[in-house]
Amino acid sequence: MLTRLLSVALLLALLVSMAPPVGAIQKKPSAFSPELLADLARLRDAAVKDDFALKQVAALSNNIGPRLSGSAQAEQAVKYVADTLRKEGCEVRLQKVMVPHWVRGVETAELVAFPGQAPGTTQKVMVTALGGSVATPADGITAEVVVASSFADLNALGRSKVEGKIVLFTAKFDDGLAKQGQADTAYGLVTPFRRNGASAAAKLGALAAINTSAGGGGNRLPHTGAMNYAGDAPKIPAAATTDEDTDLISSLVKQGTVRMHLKLTPQTLPDVESYNVIADLKGSEHPEEIVIVSGHLDSWDLGTGAIDDAAGLATAMGTIHLIRQLGIKPKRTIRLVAWMNEENGLAGGRGYAKDFEAELAKHVAAIEADSGGGRPLGIRAQATDAAIDTLEPLSGVLKPIGAGVLYPTREANGADLRPMSLKGVPTFAPLQDVRNYFTYHHTAADTFDKVAPKDLAECTAAVAVLALALANLPEPIPQNPPAQPERP
Amino acid sequence: MLTRLLSVALLLALLVSMAPPVGAIQKKPSAFSPELLADLARLRDAAVKDDFALKQVAALSNNIGPRLSGSAQAEQAVKYVADTLRKEGCEVRLQKVMVPHWVRGVETAELVAFPGQAPGTTQKVMVTALGGSVATPADGITAEVVVASSFADLNALGRSKVEGKIVLFTAKFDDGLAKQGQADTAYGLVTPFRRNGASAAAKLGALAAINTSAGGGGNRLPHTGAMNYAGDAPKIPAAATTDEDTDLISSLVKQGTVRMHLKLTPQTLPDVESYNVIADLKGSEHPEEIVIVSGHLDSWDLGTGAIDDAAGLATAMGTIHLIRQLGIKPKRTIRLVAWMNEENGLAGGRGYAKDFEAELAKHVAAIEADSGGGRPLGIRAQATDAAIDTLEPLSGVLKPIGAGVLYPTREANGADLRPMSLKGVPTFAPLQDVRNYFTYHHTAADTFDKVAPKDLAECTAAVAVLALALANLPEPIPQNPPAQPERP
Repeated sequence: MLTRLLSVALLLALLVSMAPPVGAIQKKPSAFSPELLADLARLRDAAVKDDFALKQVAALSNNIGPRLSGSAQAEQAVKYVADTLRKEGCEVRLQKVMVPHWVRGVETAELVAFPGQAPGTTQKVMVTALGGSVATPADGITAEVVVASSFADLNALGRSKVEGKIVLFTAKFDDGLAKQGQADTAYGLVTPFRRNGASAAAKLGALAAINTSAGGGGNRLPHTGAMNYAGDAPKIPAAATTDEDTDLISSLVKQGTVRMHLKLTPQTLPDVESYNVIADLKGSEHPEEIVIVSGHLDSWDLGTGAIDDAAGLATAMGTIHLIRQLGIKPKRTIRLVAWMNEENGLAGGRGYAKDFEAELAKHVAAIEADSGGGRPLGIRAQATDAAIDTLEPLSGVLKPIGAGVLYPTREANGADLRPMSLKGVPTFAPLQDVRNYFTYHHTAADTFDKVAPKDLAECTAAVAVLALALANLPEPIPQNPPAQPERP
Repeated sequence: MLTRLLSVALLLALLVSMAPPVGAIQKKPSAFSPELLADLARLRDAAVKDDFALKQVAALSNNIGPRLSGSAQAEQAVKYVADTLRKEGCEVRLQKVMVPHWVRGVETAELVAFPGQAPGTTQKVMVTALGGSVATPADGITAEVVVASSFADLNALGRSKVEGKIVLFTAKFDDGLAKQGQADTAYGLVTPFRRNGASAAAKLGALAAINTSAGGGGNRLPHTGAMNYAGDAPKIPAAATTDEDTDLISSLVKQGTVRMHLKLTPQTLPDVESYNVIADLKGSEHPEEIVIVSGHLDSWDLGTGAIDDAAGLATAMGTIHLIRQLGIKPKRTIRLVAWMNEENGLAGGRGYAKDFEAELAKHVAAIEADSGGGRPLGIRAQATDAAIDTLEPLSGVLKPIGAGVLYPTREANGADLRPMSLKGVPTFAPLQDVRNYFTYHHTAADTFDKVAPKDLAECTAAVAVLALALANLPEPIPQNPPAQPERP
């Protein structure tokens, strides 16, 4: 008996000696009260069972459809979201922004001369005009195609080989990289050809430019997207084609001369008055302190804008709905912003940062969900280390739905949030599985079925939990140091 | 020691008692001589390293392009294949067949009235005309959409709900089933709506019929294909739409009235004289005995017909090329047939069985590869048990490339072979991985990149090995008992 007691005593002594010094494990007390943690857990559990967000995606994508800035559908979406949030008890206002009004027209391309061609035939090439592109002449352009694998390659060709031609940029979106979780990197590697390819080609005398779609391929669907014209180059028509068509043309160009007939008839109409929808769920203690939840209202026009970005906006709408439904009182104001014109101008994000500049110091944080309908793995946080430390208990709240990662970022989380992030407003987003996002993004296949109900409900849970924590912590998280002003 | 010896003796006695009677394990001697097995192994090894077949797919799909019956591209493909096989030392002739000449036109659809619609807007619906469809009036049809999940569902709706409407058949291709290896079953479950949907709807007074694509979805690409008009129903326009659009319309129809504007302007021109290409590599001992290797020359017009069926035809062309290159002498004639009009009429297959009827008794076997570019798992054999027993050693020859399965089938292997199979000609095909075949089949995305070089080379190996075995076995394999005549 004595021996056994001694053993127990020795074991205890050993355990004590292995423990770290007391000071090292003493953490500062959590800012999350038991009451707040209980509310967050309730909100999470309600969100994963709720279909309000899914219904919003259906309403925006199926009933209204594509919502390009300046369109009647975008206008309808403004009304729909404002009405819905009024019914949810929010104080709603429309913030005026002027947006571009670019309208897609006919878009066709075919190879009219190529090696091995059957007499009198052409080969169809899938193209879609890039947002903002000028039109070809009404009967199109017919010209030889030259291929360039990079801007360096284009410049090495030089004016003598580019003048009077149609330039095809052959760099493809690396879907393998995307599937390994580096989708943003894959996207970033090819968007320069979409954004700047036309002006680079125009400076060497090209008649039109075509980029290989900035997005996953394999289904011969071209991906549209925004492009910019440089001030010092002629404006030439710009379109995207598919991996398949780039392969076809590249193969034929190696064998001989390839000539294409390209017809694009988009129109740029006068700018249109449009709106950000701003819907406040007023804070009970600090109504002047703002936590933004957001997604963008506008979409590209080829699909119905379900993943980009009805899904994101729906998580924000779901957040408001769930907090109200559970009878939880936010201490700070939770402000839903449905951004207009994310896709081709960012007028909404810029306009907000300008019109609300004086109040940005009281903007505790801004969340934007704009990465599709994939499941959440955690939260992206562009915030100070102190803020991220404070928010650490969120990891525990979201771990049961597999979203426990707190992922610090340097860049603003959400294109619409960038202007306010430059003023020091911390920005957040759900960290999502985006392995398939760029397969459908900006294509005709961005449709309602691409949003998995369970994944969307979990994203809504992540956004709602984060927003409520930011609104109800005893102290607001600190702002970020203001960044360098945006380069022109 | 005695005990141990006794044990061994008992064990031996037991083993002997468990063995089958000697007669049952005695096999008849293999029909495959060591020389033949060596030739087959050489052929297999050469095939997996050879790119002749791949170059044929490129020539047919990239240089010539889509090859719908009656088109200039189909005509060019006849010339190309005939020329190529002449250069390969074959005796080439063109067998005349009359083929339909159906030409796709404009094909657009949009929802012009639906619940929640923004004023003045429409929702685009992806459609493609089915091969053989009549046109809508020049300015299209505008009518309410009714949905039917089956023919029973359609008939339950009855004339009162169908008359004057556009019928949408909502049954989807079951991609899950396809991915489990039951692609043919999945396809068979939905093709009746494509083939017979228009006439079923027309009998109840519908103005047009749309089927949900008979093929894998997820990328908003409609799948075209052949359809038939019944003799006792008005001919109404017929199109296919996508899973996404069926979801959209089904969702909206549940909420209220949906009206569609549908415009299809295909034309059925007079029949055209076209050709099967028949290229003989003459047998050294029994030139009158024929082993057919084949694929079809024609393709649908949306993509470039790479998997359907440049790939199949290329395995047959590769077979001729490799046997010649290795200096192997076939004892029977190996006859390549490049079939015309598999897709929309089967004029080639029917015409062959008719024109060569007197010689079919000397057709030892016919092989057709028409299941895309997926890797081979073995050989499909519509042949007698005795024939399959004889061919069993092929399993050993093809096992090193993973294609060792001998898979007996009841049905003819290859639509073009069916007419001759009804006369008793045994038919064969490579047994292929078709899990992804119906994703691209009959769509714009049936393009060269979908054919994986390694898989195609292995298919060529399987076809070549099978063909040479059938040509060089000491005795021809027995024919099948003739089947019931085809129903009209």
